Amino acid sequence: KKITVLAGDGIGLEVTGITQNILEIIGERFGHSFEFSPALIGHSAIEATGEPCPQATIDACKASDAVLLGAVGMPMYDNNPNLKVRPEQGLLKIRKELGLFSNIRPIKLFDELLYTSSIKPEILQGSDIIFFRELTGGIYFGTPRERNEDGTEAIDTLRYSKMEVERIARQAFESAMTRRKKLCSVDKANVLESSRLWRETVQALSAEYPEVEVTHMFIDNAAMQLIRDPKQFDVIVTGNMFGDILTDEASQIAGSMGMLPSASVGSEIGLYEPIHGSAPDIAGKGIANPIASVLSGALLLDISFGLKDESDAIISAVDQFLKDGYRTLDIATEETPEDKRMNTEQTG
Amino acid sequence: KKITVLAGDGIGLEVTGITQNILEIIGERFGHSFEFSPALIGHSAIEATGEPCPQATIDACKASDAVLLGAVGMPMYDNNPNLKVRPEQGLLKIRKELGLFSNIRPIKLFDELLYTSSIKPEILQGSDIIFFRELTGGIYFGTPRERNEDGTEAIDTLRYSKMEVERIARQAFESAMTRRKKLCSVDKANVLESSRLWRETVQALSAEYPEVEVTHMFIDNAAMQLIRDPKQFDVIVTGNMFGDILTDEASQIAGSMGMLPSASVGSEIGLYEPIHGSAPDIAGKGIANPIASVLSGALLLDISFGLKDESDAIISAVDQFLKDGYRTLDIATEETPEDKRMNTEQTG
Ligand SMILES: CC(C)[C@H](C(=O)O)[C@@H](O)C(=O)O
Ligand SMILES: CC(C)[C@H](C(=O)O)[C@@H](O)C(=O)O
Repeated sequence: KKITVLAGDGIGLEVTGITQNILEIIGERFGHSFEFSPALIGHSAIEATGEPCPQATIDACKASDAVLLGAVGMPMYDNNPNLKVRPEQGLLKIRKELGLFSNIRPIKLFDELLYTSSIKPEILQGSDIIFFRELTGGIYFGTPRERNEDGTEAIDTLRYSKMEVERIARQAFESAMTRRKKLCSVDKANVLESSRLWRETVQALSAEYPEVEVTHMFIDNAAMQLIRDPKQFDVIVTGNMFGDILTDEASQIAGSMGMLPSASVGSEIGLYEPIHGSAPDIAGKGIANPIASVLSGALLLDISFGLKDESDAIISAVDQFLKDGYRTLDIATEETPEDKRMNTEQTG
Repeated sequence: KKITVLAGDGIGLEVTGITQNILEIIGERFGHSFEFSPALIGHSAIEATGEPCPQATIDACKASDAVLLGAVGMPMYDNNPNLKVRPEQGLLKIRKELGLFSNIRPIKLFDELLYTSSIKPEILQGSDIIFFRELTGGIYFGTPRERNEDGTEAIDTLRYSKMEVERIARQAFESAMTRRKKLCSVDKANVLESSRLWRETVQALSAEYPEVEVTHMFIDNAAMQLIRDPKQFDVIVTGNMFGDILTDEASQIAGSMGMLPSASVGSEIGLYEPIHGSAPDIAGKGIANPIASVLSGALLLDISFGLKDESDAIISAVDQFLKDGYRTLDIATEETPEDKRMNTEQTG
């Protein structure tokens, strides 16, 4: 099985390195051979080739069975509007090129981290949410997206088609059928035309899933409900931008951004990446939390390769690691003893 | 002083009723006479006139010194795309007609409610944030916003001009100068062209406010940071949609949506409304929390009429009311005694 590794920028390199090691160990233990080949994306690709996602990277991904991605982005681009070529374009391009319209983000709280969050344990306990974020449409891709001639005005376009909504909603319904049979669709239908299309389409599709209890929630309310009472949610389906916002917020349910993996699917080749960014401020120090990437590796084994036992072995190992008391800084508390404050170099 | 009261829909009626009573009491006590006149907006306006914000309402607001608004919206519109005339259009129209480009949302946690939130008290204690949400631009107003011919595709347009960004950012900088001199501007500049314009403009303006420490944060990260560590924020400035999302989320810092007032300013006439919606499910039962509306009344006195002592008198009264142990359901805890679980009819 061939896995293309797009380490990307910042902590992307160190966290995917650890995940690759773990996948190799799993391969040995369970008798599979995984072949890893690196390719460029993001700032590092721009540096080397001038492009954030060169054709060679696209070709490599398309020739492999799955893609493991780290993170992209560097602050030098963020405050400099003159840099027209940006790392994030690479991420958007690979998602689009591989047809990854569905970004699956499970929000799972490990028991050991119940007290780590800024949210009260009694609010968190028992939460178990899975997000389906539409990933190749909406305001991330709609055109026109441009300045006017003198640069004093800018526009972006939020566009959704029925087909785009239906295919992600169908995945969410299917997932709900295997879970607690509750689906919440998040939109802003009281203001946006595209959200009204979204809502209509989800509503129409619900006829095919009579057992699933469907609710619709406005994004503002959802952002509030998610921390007021996360247990009310089972499966959530939403657009690209709303999904981006809500899942980052939901990371607090799991204790830290450093804990959340994601799977992007839609065609034969899945892409697996943490939901966190490249965090260049902590990159190279060996203090980044690798768990989000490691769990992305577990999703890869499960979803792309159908290796459920192998995937579960990784999840159990993470659980045991936490039970043993090891903590990176983002999930450490005052109680974490000095010798268990991990430095991810040790976890490789 | 003339105040137009736009009660609107659902709990809008009961909460503005209470606020009007309180403003009358304040008027008597401090020797002012406030003249209240009701006008229609939202579903109730549609029922009566076919329009969500009839010309008579606009005229009444323009002829008054300030506007007190309840809430608009009814679920019958939310799942019915055939209803082309909707309550929320009335709200957007009055904001636009009155030139209210700046929506000020202070997030203040009353001491008594420190333990009410889903967020841990030690995370909340000492938080004090003021949001400046752009209110008459962005994706709420950009055109085109429409379906294609066969209805299978929909678009909305996110448009910002330098001028629009500058005027709201200026208000935020001015506010920061009177506070802890920290301004966080929230955007999605790694993806959106309009956000890059937003960031550039805020950045350029910061030269005029060298004392203010400016940071830029992506909306996804902001949604996470807001609950991870709300104390890091002082003043936040952001666009219409992002502001809508973040302020609803931030209501959990104050314990409940029922606690947060807002002031919309930009021209001579200010409009004051709770940030919560019309909550039709609890309307008419006398259980809605009127505090958000009452505090909106306090903002009205302070900002539109310059009556600071009078405004403070209202805030102290709310504080005392909470200290006395009275609670509406949204802020009640297990410890709230039966006889202090308020029914807002009693608070009039
Ligand atoms: C880096 C950025 C473009 C990206 C996104 O917004 O999709 C990231 O935030 C994510 O959630 O994967
Ligand atoms: C009712 C709705 C249109 C409105 C908005 O999104 O502006 C509300 O959520 C608010 O925040 O005032």
